[in-house]
Amino acid sequence: MLSQKPLIFAQITSMHRSHTCGALRQSDVNKDVQLAGWVQRIRDKGFVLWIDLRDRYGVTQLVLDEERCDAALISKAKTLGREFVVQVNGYVIEREAKNSAIPTGDVEVLVKELTILNPAEVPPFTLKDETDGGDDLRMKYRYLDIRRNTIKDKLLFRNKVAQVIRNYLSSQDFAEIETPYLIKSTPEGARDFVVPSRMNPGQFYALPQSPQTFKQLLMVGGMDRYYQIVKCFRDEDLRADRQPEFTQIDCEMSFVEQDDILAVFEGLLQQLLQDIHGIKPTTFPRLSYADAIATYGSDKPDIRFGMHLAGLNEVAQSKGFQVFDRQEWIGGFAVEGGAAMSRKEIDSWIDWVKRPQIGAKGMVWVKCNEDGSYKSSVDKFYSQEDLAAWASACHAKKGDIILVLSGGKAQTHTQLGELRLAVAEKMGLRDPKVFAPLWVVDFPLFEQVEGEDHFHAMHHPFTAPKPAQIVQLDSSPSSVFANAYDLVLNGNEIGGGSIRIHNRKMQEKIFSLLGFSKQEAQAQFGFLMDAFRYGAPPHGGIALGFDRLVAVLDGQESIRDYIAFPKNNSGRDVMIDAPAPLDDDQLDELSLQSKT
Amino acid sequence: MLSQKPLIFAQITSMHRSHTCGALRQSDVNKDVQLAGWVQRIRDKGFVLWIDLRDRYGVTQLVLDEERCDAALISKAKTLGREFVVQVNGYVIEREAKNSAIPTGDVEVLVKELTILNPAEVPPFTLKDETDGGDDLRMKYRYLDIRRNTIKDKLLFRNKVAQVIRNYLSSQDFAEIETPYLIKSTPEGARDFVVPSRMNPGQFYALPQSPQTFKQLLMVGGMDRYYQIVKCFRDEDLRADRQPEFTQIDCEMSFVEQDDILAVFEGLLQQLLQDIHGIKPTTFPRLSYADAIATYGSDKPDIRFGMHLAGLNEVAQSKGFQVFDRQEWIGGFAVEGGAAMSRKEIDSWIDWVKRPQIGAKGMVWVKCNEDGSYKSSVDKFYSQEDLAAWASACHAKKGDIILVLSGGKAQTHTQLGELRLAVAEKMGLRDPKVFAPLWVVDFPLFEQVEGEDHFHAMHHPFTAPKPAQIVQLDSSPSSVFANAYDLVLNGNEIGGGSIRIHNRKMQEKIFSLLGFSKQEAQAQFGFLMDAFRYGAPPHGGIALGFDRLVAVLDGQESIRDYIAFPKNNSGRDVMIDAPAPLDDDQLDELSLQSKT
Repeated sequence: MLSQKPLIFAQITSMHRSHTCGALRQSDVNKDVQLAGWVQRIRDKGFVLWIDLRDRYGVTQLVLDEERCDAALISKAKTLGREFVVQVNGYVIEREAKNSAIPTGDVEVLVKELTILNPAEVPPFTLKDETDGGDDLRMKYRYLDIRRNTIKDKLLFRNKVAQVIRNYLSSQDFAEIETPYLIKSTPEGARDFVVPSRMNPGQFYALPQSPQTFKQLLMVGGMDRYYQIVKCFRDEDLRADRQPEFTQIDCEMSFVEQDDILAVFEGLLQQLLQDIHGIKPTTFPRLSYADAIATYGSDKPDIRFGMHLAGLNEVAQSKGFQVFDRQEWIGGFAVEGGAAMSRKEIDSWIDWVKRPQIGAKGMVWVKCNEDGSYKSSVDKFYSQEDLAAWASACHAKKGDIILVLSGGKAQTHTQLGELRLAVAEKMGLRDPKVFAPLWVVDFPLFEQVEGEDHFHAMHHPFTAPKPAQIVQLDSSPSSVFANAYDLVLNGNEIGGGSIRIHNRKMQEKIFSLLGFSKQEAQAQFGFLMDAFRYGAPPHGGIALGFDRLVAVLDGQESIRDYIAFPKNNSGRDVMIDAPAPLDDDQLDELSLQSKT
Repeated sequence: MLSQKPLIFAQITSMHRSHTCGALRQSDVNKDVQLAGWVQRIRDKGFVLWIDLRDRYGVTQLVLDEERCDAALISKAKTLGREFVVQVNGYVIEREAKNSAIPTGDVEVLVKELTILNPAEVPPFTLKDETDGGDDLRMKYRYLDIRRNTIKDKLLFRNKVAQVIRNYLSSQDFAEIETPYLIKSTPEGARDFVVPSRMNPGQFYALPQSPQTFKQLLMVGGMDRYYQIVKCFRDEDLRADRQPEFTQIDCEMSFVEQDDILAVFEGLLQQLLQDIHGIKPTTFPRLSYADAIATYGSDKPDIRFGMHLAGLNEVAQSKGFQVFDRQEWIGGFAVEGGAAMSRKEIDSWIDWVKRPQIGAKGMVWVKCNEDGSYKSSVDKFYSQEDLAAWASACHAKKGDIILVLSGGKAQTHTQLGELRLAVAEKMGLRDPKVFAPLWVVDFPLFEQVEGEDHFHAMHHPFTAPKPAQIVQLDSSPSSVFANAYDLVLNGNEIGGGSIRIHNRKMQEKIFSLLGFSKQEAQAQFGFLMDAFRYGAPPHGGIALGFDRLVAVLDGQESIRDYIAFPKNNSGRDVMIDAPAPLDDDQLDELSLQSKT
């Protein structure tokens, strides 16, 4: 694989520098060098001056002293401030006090000439790993924020991940093919961003939410294996850590079944873990959607740790505890060593599950004491024997605590799933250096939405049903599984895909079950259904959220700092101040009028 | 360099096939194989049937005959039509009549099982290298057009060029960093496509015409070397072979001068010519803008052949030929061997230069006969000696013809430049297998546009003047050269760039010479000028037109077939029928009203 070869980096030299600020080593001592970069820090001891010079590649210490440098040079150096851009000529000497914390720490450069390439005003916040800059300030001056290692390293990490992905997919014969950005709006699903056409007055393009139909057409066109790392757009009300424009690794393959696709993308993740973290091949369990919900209370489970959910209806109902007796479902999980929790800690978890974001009414707990006895918040209603049955259902051992929620079945699973993650987080079980991928499969094809007389597609309308279940489409559509799969990593859905429909009649049937009239289906997706007339191969694919994948691979939760110029939660770029009103002339040319 | 290593392609197997249609060789004889693909051609001889099965990777011949296949199988095969998608099991046998034209030509597959994966209607045009499909039909059914080798190979060629570029730039430590697509509109230059913001009513994003300001901010942010292969957008009235969305290879470097940038991108083109065509390193002449115009009548000269222009004022004026005497400039060039041109051929060139696209009033010619005499269309006015002086000025030899135009100086250079290209084309001198790159440098910084009281930027407003000429900015701005360069290949401008201004005061001065008020400059580019306050490094870059580069490297003139889903000359995608009217609800949500 290409990506297993380390890249050979060019020696970066130019008219302005002979070396970067990360290049010099002990072996360079006595060399005449030229460096350029930013002044990170100045220590002025009067007769001697140390300057940390920084660029993308590292930091090199410069030194000037009265003994070896002339007075004019020293006074010039004393005019420097933080973030000045300078060029120096000097020669490399061994440091008296070496700094093993940085690769250039054995040496320093005795300055002979100093040129100020550009002075700098004092930056609006401190450009260090730990900054005093608030979010708004950092976003307004994003170009300064990027100078900090914390951001710079994340952008370079993203670049590296992209390289590994491209090399892997190329080695697997995927061709990178660009699909158009100016496409057609479809009223279904999330809102499109639209682009008025000046040459076609009254008409609009839409920006793609994904290249879905185009990649399917590429398969109809015989391209066989396609990929693209591509921007997509969704005009949603933004939640925290969502961006109106986001990047997708988009792939499609012909003449494949589900297993073919899973194999290729297991290979991709193996390659990434290997090249980025040196992690040896791992396993990819496959979990059905139903099992994921039952065991983890989530369709994107974090399987780095246990704490499996267990249903407790059989052992907890009809024992006189009315709160449980009237609920649809009671479930819980054991927390290893949790019997040591203080009453205060337990109370804080009770408060946590009662927050509106979780919405539980309360939480029952059972401590499994080291002496084999049980202590619970419902001792009034349950005997030691009863509680032993709970412990057995939850696989709780001595020293564990069992946390129990009750309510509607679906809702309580979700609540327990959230609680499980939060407890694990608190206990340090979500180790960012451990990677536990899995596939979630066997999703239902359709969702029923209350108050609507037709189904919704759980993935999208192009997803094929499981071949063996096609016969159920008429009699019992909601029991049909999709030929779809999600790739989950450490509790994050990092990708999803499916085998697509490639048969015109089947596509028509699915559109009809989704409530499209024949006319609507034809108007919006006629080109795709027409394409299926002329020999469409069996095909399927996957799309991975690149922003999220990069963050998760780097052990981080937030995607924002992996994006060079992100937008804020109102969809604004506060640095360039966009969006902004247009000139009336521009609106006129577009045959548009603003109603604000 | 990574790209010098051939890619290791995976053996493409799947649930549907053991081999691709391009894989089987003599060494596979006697193997049981499974293939899938499209029916390219059927030859039915009654008792024996040959089928060409096609996929992205090639064509394999299938054979069925009455002797070795059962009757049911043969009758099923007889139901197949062109472009049916089928899967076959069979075994590989040696062909009796080998076909050396295709890599699989030594073998054929004796079919044992045949599955029709998808039938196909008769395609609306023939899917062969030479198609009977007109442009409109091919565009409407682009997914079928892509199946033809002529298009498929171009898309795969584009993929290969992208790979070489990415690997080269990565090896040179360029980091791929994505810049935003939803940015701010600027009223200057070409028109922006705009995107109404629903969350910010009355406000609009713009789609980038290039990531220019963002890549400069990345340099201010210390990223040092950036690249991106990125879509850009320009809402222009479309000319033939222009697309509203196009792809740019966008690069920027810090701490560099012009020579640093030229060296890196000469390296890129060397790498491309080497990896794609096996061409050894070539030279990159540098030609000043003034010399390019004087010698070739073009700022993007094709230097694969000579035919240099020569000024003839001195030898052609004041000889009594009033047509010439009253012109600003007379010029011509010698065509090798052109003395053999018939009168009819010469007349057709005269008609050619008189077409409105060229706009010359007429053309004078001089044949340099083998006997040393001259024969011209202006023998009445010029002696043999006079014409000998013309021949000497044009470096014409015996057997050549000199073609001469006259008129305004700038216009006549352009006309001669066009004529030179057309004659060379006719003579087969524009060999698509020969690549002659060059740099055009020393462009004027400003252009004067008639009727306007301020200058226009010849490149863009961020281009730095030549350092030595900064002093002339006040006294004689139009004499100042830009620190800019164009990369030209075979008569095509494939890239252009410059050293940028990194000093706030200089940027303000240039904006003012370009007619921006202080307020306008601040409102539109305040973020950039603010960035220059905080330590901007010297930087510069280049942008290459990827669509054009790919076409030129493949020896083609038109970019359209290198784009998977191009738009037509009205900016429409006729396949998906975009742009299209929006629902009123969608317009309402955007606080917009259509005035059509």
